Amino acid sequence: MLYFSCDYAEGCHPKVLEALTESNLVSTPGYGEDKYCAEAKKKIRDYIKCPNADIYFLVGGTQTNQVVIDSMLSNYDGVVAAATGHVACHEAGAIEYSGHKVITLPAHEGKIDAAELKDMLETHYADDSYEHMVNPGMVYISYPTEYGTLYSRSELEAVSSICKEYDIPLFIDGARLAYGLAAQDELTMADIASFADVFYIGGTKVGALFGEAVVFTKGNTPKHMITQIKQHGALLAKGRLLGVQFGALFTDDLYMEMGRHAISQATIIREDLRQKGYQLFMENPTNQIFVVMENEALKTFGEKVAYGFWEKYDNSHTVIRIATSWATSDEAVNALKMIL
Amino acid sequence: MLYFSCDYAEGCHPKVLEALTESNLVSTPGYGEDKYCAEAKKKIRDYIKCPNADIYFLVGGTQTNQVVIDSMLSNYDGVVAAATGHVACHEAGAIEYSGHKVITLPAHEGKIDAAELKDMLETHYADDSYEHMVNPGMVYISYPTEYGTLYSRSELEAVSSICKEYDIPLFIDGARLAYGLAAQDELTMADIASFADVFYIGGTKVGALFGEAVVFTKGNTPKHMITQIKQHGALLAKGRLLGVQFGALFTDDLYMEMGRHAISQATIIREDLRQKGYQLFMENPTNQIFVVMENEALKTFGEKVAYGFWEKYDNSHTVIRIATSWATSDEAVNALKMIL
Amino acid sequence: MLYFSCDYAEGCHPKVLEALTESNLVSTPGYGEDKYCAEAKKKIRDYIKCPNADIYFLVGGTQTNQVVIDSMLSNYDGVVAAATGHVACHEAGAIEYSGHKVITLPAHEGKIDAAELKDMLETHYADDSYEHMVNPGMVYISYPTEYGTLYSRSELEAVSSICKEYDIPLFIDGARLAYGLAAQDELTMADIASFADVFYIGGTKVGALFGEAVVFTKGNTPKHMITQIKQHGALLAKGRLLGVQFGALFTDDLYMEMGRHAISQATIIREDLRQKGYQLFMENPTNQIFVVMENEALKTFGEKVAYGFWEKYDNSHTVIRIATSWATSDEAVNALKMIL
Amino acid sequence: MLYFSCDYAEGCHPKVLEALTESNLVSTPGYGEDKYCAEAKKKIRDYIKCPNADIYFLVGGTQTNQVVIDSMLSNYDGVVAAATGHVACHEAGAIEYSGHKVITLPAHEGKIDAAELKDMLETHYADDSYEHMVNPGMVYISYPTEYGTLYSRSELEAVSSICKEYDIPLFIDGARLAYGLAAQDELTMADIASFADVFYIGGTKVGALFGEAVVFTKGNTPKHMITQIKQHGALLAKGRLLGVQFGALFTDDLYMEMGRHAISQATIIREDLRQKGYQLFMENPTNQIFVVMENEALKTFGEKVAYGFWEKYDNSHTVIRIATSWATSDEAVNALKMIL
Repeated sequence: MLYFSCDYAEGCHPKVLEALTESNLVSTPGYGEDKYCAEAKKKIRDYIKCPNADIYFLVGGTQTNQVVIDSMLSNYDGVVAAATGHVACHEAGAIEYSGHKVITLPAHEGKIDAAELKDMLETHYADDSYEHMVNPGMVYISYPTEYGTLYSRSELEAVSSICKEYDIPLFIDGARLAYGLAAQDELTMADIASFADVFYIGGTKVGALFGEAVVFTKGNTPKHMITQIKQHGALLAKGRLLGVQFGALFTDDLYMEMGRHAISQATIIREDLRQKGYQLFMENPTNQIFVVMENEALKTFGEKVAYGFWEKYDNSHTVIRIATSWATSDEAVNALKMIL
Repeated sequence: MLYFSCDYAEGCHPKVLEALTESNLVSTPGYGEDKYCAEAKKKIRDYIKCPNADIYFLVGGTQTNQVVIDSMLSNYDGVVAAATGHVACHEAGAIEYSGHKVITLPAHEGKIDAAELKDMLETHYADDSYEHMVNPGMVYISYPTEYGTLYSRSELEAVSSICKEYDIPLFIDGARLAYGLAAQDELTMADIASFADVFYIGGTKVGALFGEAVVFTKGNTPKHMITQIKQHGALLAKGRLLGVQFGALFTDDLYMEMGRHAISQATIIREDLRQKGYQLFMENPTNQIFVVMENEALKTFGEKVAYGFWEKYDNSHTVIRIATSWATSDEAVNALKMIL
Repeated sequence: MLYFSCDYAEGCHPKVLEALTESNLVSTPGYGEDKYCAEAKKKIRDYIKCPNADIYFLVGGTQTNQVVIDSMLSNYDGVVAAATGHVACHEAGAIEYSGHKVITLPAHEGKIDAAELKDMLETHYADDSYEHMVNPGMVYISYPTEYGTLYSRSELEAVSSICKEYDIPLFIDGARLAYGLAAQDELTMADIASFADVFYIGGTKVGALFGEAVVFTKGNTPKHMITQIKQHGALLAKGRLLGVQFGALFTDDLYMEMGRHAISQATIIREDLRQKGYQLFMENPTNQIFVVMENEALKTFGEKVAYGFWEKYDNSHTVIRIATSWATSDEAVNALKMIL
Repeated sequence: MLYFSCDYAEGCHPKVLEALTESNLVSTPGYGEDKYCAEAKKKIRDYIKCPNADIYFLVGGTQTNQVVIDSMLSNYDGVVAAATGHVACHEAGAIEYSGHKVITLPAHEGKIDAAELKDMLETHYADDSYEHMVNPGMVYISYPTEYGTLYSRSELEAVSSICKEYDIPLFIDGARLAYGLAAQDELTMADIASFADVFYIGGTKVGALFGEAVVFTKGNTPKHMITQIKQHGALLAKGRLLGVQFGALFTDDLYMEMGRHAISQATIIREDLRQKGYQLFMENPTNQIFVVMENEALKTFGEKVAYGFWEKYDNSHTVIRIATSWATSDEAVNALKMIL
């Protein structure tokens, strides 16, 4: 069986495993107060050219979104997101569970539109009864989006500029950050850090066993952050595991190298699909490929390839997701091409 | 200044005040364990022809929605509502505050469509990753809706039938129930009780100082209901005040009499608006009238009449709300007609 | 049946009812934006000699505690209270429901001890793992306490001073404030306002149908306070009812007059109990009297007098509460003396 | 520096690392739906002789306590725990954050007393106003306790029996379960499973990188458990990591072997401390040793040994914790003895 269902089907990149193995029996303090975490934070700060960035390592994506949003918002705040945003639909209500509404904007291939954001904010504050409504207290976007699309530099500038105008923090979910950065050449991770008030660098989907690095870029860390993380059940006892892994990810450009690898494999597959006349559900340049498949053909396909169900297209077709990752081998890509 | 901005601008109907005055110095137990509450509950049970109905009196509408939804849902459940539903937009996130997502369906003149509800539920459970999504655990509709429109009997039957099919309780918000029932002749309050798993009879907007009567119609009262009400800060110490008021509302058909009065006044105004060529923003038969006004004209109008701002129509027009109530006098209606 | 079970067994003081009756058919804006609320706030500000006090009217005590505590605390904060404090044991978990721990200190006849408070705070911050613990973010005391006792001026100064030292707001629950102030002569309501960062003036138990006036005394109102109140389902639609009532309570010294009346009646009863050899469970000077009664005698007593069960004393005795109020008539007191 | 500060200072047992390494590049479905999890669950079911046990793997202890308690309780429920219980004091309010009060009982060397539990429950339901109080909805104990002590079989039977009588689930926190089971010989893990309605097998402190196995023993898994785990941000994407680790822990008796090793090392140290005249703060048979140290001596000691601060004993003494684990080598024990 070929695995293309997601980008977290394997363990970790061999170099990450090597780092975990080497450090395994070293004794350290718990909860991230160890040298590995300190070193990894320094590497990230250097890489994003943000010497004052304050960094926290968490375990998973939904957890990270919940902790970041809840710790930065006040009771009366909600978070603005695309209707297709992960926080809006695939986190089992983790945001609402922590007391905050997800205020949705229309999704345009997974992205919010800056003009629509501005209009929503204007309308909100112009409404006589706005005090009876949830306050828009943060804007959440994902890069890449859940549909694998990317904000261009100018789109990101526009969203960021409106956030600044309304004094609302911009949170960028980078669960697949490497795959977004590697798929274009007008934005670096330093640019992401510059546009965002807070963002996270995804490890789970890019070569780590698990782990997301939350970066507060503007001296804006919520108070008592460790207590808040603990309160969400999100403080890893052996925090060093996150430091060790992110240390490896940010050594010798491994993080971006993995990003480039996945994009390269995705490009080959996408090209093959196009040549063979498959219909792509959505154009996007990153590691997730959305294909419209005829249901009968899909049955045969599914016997050989583990794919991701995305959504029903029509009564006889289904949208599926084919995802590459740091772990996608040339052999797997070739085998897939043979099947397609 | 003429008051047409809302249907809660005055105190209470003189008969309600009379009942409060008469009972004022009688000593009773607190928290609703008094004879007035018992009597009022009996009157309501008789009126809705539901002898086993379990009734709780609460103070206000948002409070009632929060308590009912939170006590009936489990952690993993959200509530399905029209995008324009009160719980979705004008309760400052009270539902999310209690941990539950409001799952929105498109609003059709304030109403949800049964077919769209069914489609949403089918799609939800057909989704491979539905366990990562909020479970649709209740359907919320309002009668009348926030736009003053009404579900027909067949529309209500359709929504109710889908709820039964999926074993999801149907909650009907009757903040303005009298004004809905009085505006049509195919549905009685007993019908509402029959379709709903839980509904509430609004007092605040129909002649009480405050108060909403929550009715569990199917032997489905959540456990430890008093504790849950107390936990939300919603247990009135002098609960007898609610019993006294609802007792008066359900004596000599006062509740429905007030409903008919408000509808009669609204019909006169609506007719006048039509004759004078005003554009109604939305057709509806109840006590709220939505009119498109030219902004300059509105300024003059606003000097004489307190109206409700509804929303911007376009750059030179505004949608306003004119609401009648049990308290709308013939003099006020005539004065309004002179101004229009 | 004589009613001495609690101080909220009747409706409201005749003067409050008169004010409600007079204003009943006046049309006003909703949600407290009316002239009655404005006037009542001015009267309170004058009375407590705190011209910048920011005042909000809420409906009930548990609701008020929940809204004040939740709006003033951050996620990581808990509230410190006596183990017998209302928020700690008789609010059905309303504080925890809003996400905050009640950190208890030993109760000394219902009061916390300033030295124990200081010790707790010192120990907390000296603990290496204090970041893994709830942050003490507010101190809650009640005046009078749940046991009818009173902090002396020096005790209050001591608690307040420690709060200032640790930069923690002091919240004084004044559900029965009039009964506390009337029972001693070293503290005025202006003193309470001066010691507290936030306090509330109880109306429900002192002559109103319902209502508590929350006073932020130090320019420290939480942001978006109306939104937060709404979010808790605590924003009364006809907010004017609270303004009208508090306006009456603060006219012609009515609030304190009622306080003095209740204390005077309690003193007569307490004296009678002492003369007849009853054992008082706890000495206190306010309107609640705690008496140890023999169980058999209590049965007969209970046939004639509605009393409050307090707690089991031993296998043959029970502690009961006899409460006077603004409504306790001389006839009732005399009748009670005949029965005792 | 010798590390005796805690039992989670290293990575994982070499056999666990071996299993992770071997499986590292195998592709599996996410979220625990893989063969490793299935196999590990089977091994645990066999080991605890509970073929119908329903098992979920989570990442950390506080997270596990929060998820288990919140998913098993209703809104109106609180959890009963010893005042020194982890959920009561060292989880940053994670339980209250999820809306539930921790109702504390006195701790007797970390344990609750069955008779006091019974008395609390009797008193609760006998109280006239019990509906105004949090309902005791679960009993939480830890085995071993936070003080390293153990419930005897008869103590556990007594607590379990009262829980059954009141129909309240008993939750046993086994963060250090191996260290408790290895330190006595009257209780097996199967006994724990039999007494508990739900318990967890701690991996983080016993040889895993991270991981706790929650076991529902009585067909009592909360509904939509995966959704609830996801909602708490606790669903690990690469769930197989937990399966792989617990598979290794439950192969060739590794879990208990590690338990016996830690107890053996602790016994040697404890004996040495006794011989040298140190005062043990609390007698207990497990892997945590609590010693009273003179403050000056502690300074020197702390230069060579990483210990855990426990609490201030008096002005010149401190209670410290010395913890052994699966990783404590003979060399480290001997070196510690030289320093003591």
